[in-house]
Amino acid sequence: MVILGIDPGYAIIGYGVLDTTKQNMLLDYGAIVTPKEDSMPVRLQNIDKSLKYLFDKFKPDVVAIEELFYFKNQKTVIQVAQARGVILLACQKYCGNIYEYTPLQIKQALTGQGRAEKAQVQFMVKAILGLENIPKPDDAADALAVAICHSQSSPMLNNNKI
Amino acid sequence: MVILGIDPGYAIIGYGVLDTTKQNMLLDYGAIVTPKEDSMPVRLQNIDKSLKYLFDKFKPDVVAIEELFYFKNQKTVIQVAQARGVILLACQKYCGNIYEYTPLQIKQALTGQGRAEKAQVQFMVKAILGLENIPKPDDAADALAVAICHSQSSPMLNNNKI
Repeated sequence: MVILGIDPGYAIIGYGVLDTTKQNMLLDYGAIVTPKEDSMPVRLQNIDKSLKYLFDKFKPDVVAIEELFYFKNQKTVIQVAQARGVILLACQKYCGNIYEYTPLQIKQALTGQGRAEKAQVQFMVKAILGLENIPKPDDAADALAVAICHSQSSPMLNNNKI
Repeated sequence: MVILGIDPGYAIIGYGVLDTTKQNMLLDYGAIVTPKEDSMPVRLQNIDKSLKYLFDKFKPDVVAIEELFYFKNQKTVIQVAQARGVILLACQKYCGNIYEYTPLQIKQALTGQGRAEKAQVQFMVKAILGLENIPKPDDAADALAVAICHSQSSPMLNNNKI
């Protein structure tokens, strides 16, 4: 099973691709970056095109995406949510099999503790995937974390499908 | 000039289409409704397809869309913003000429008062378009209001392009 993990955002969108049928599951990771000089509609189109490229290239069976966490800054939450809408649309159009996980579920799955520090989660991403270094940027490590979280969930007991 | 006005939402998306070159400018109005039984990704895809149909049918020169107003309920703001992202993407893909207006600007343009009641704005939509009744649902009237707001703005002084 090929899993595409996504850490949503509008300026930086992390992604990570795992193939759970292989010993060394990591296929790719990275980030889609949208220039801040561009208008929001152009940035959203950039995200849509970049995701289409990833779906065409890796043909994931499933997408695992982080649930949007509440922010103190309402302007930021609106901008991130707008991008997340575009991301969900792309996932629906190009895959149709989408699972959503809360930050707590992801931390729990990777470290056994829902209140783990970010550094612990990143350390576990590196350890589980047998990497020499923590993947950069942080958004890519977060995307790999949600993909790993999905890979470790039980298909029979998974209530995270949306 | 054909203007497509949009009142963003995820359950009901109001739209209104005006042709400012004609005496009787109203071409169409209505609402895209997404069933609440559907998952959010399916509802977003429904919005995308319905907007594509409207863009194909009316080929608007410009889109006028209401700026997202802050809500007390953060879950609602996230859901509406996700849909608004999909709407902005469709506007960018199918038109590329997008103007955004705050509720205050819309009220000011239609009634001369930024603090006008909703009923006053709806009354002016009916009066300006020479209709017998206030357009229903409210979301369609709101979409016509933002389209009228754009039609009355001065192209030289308009800072609302996004």
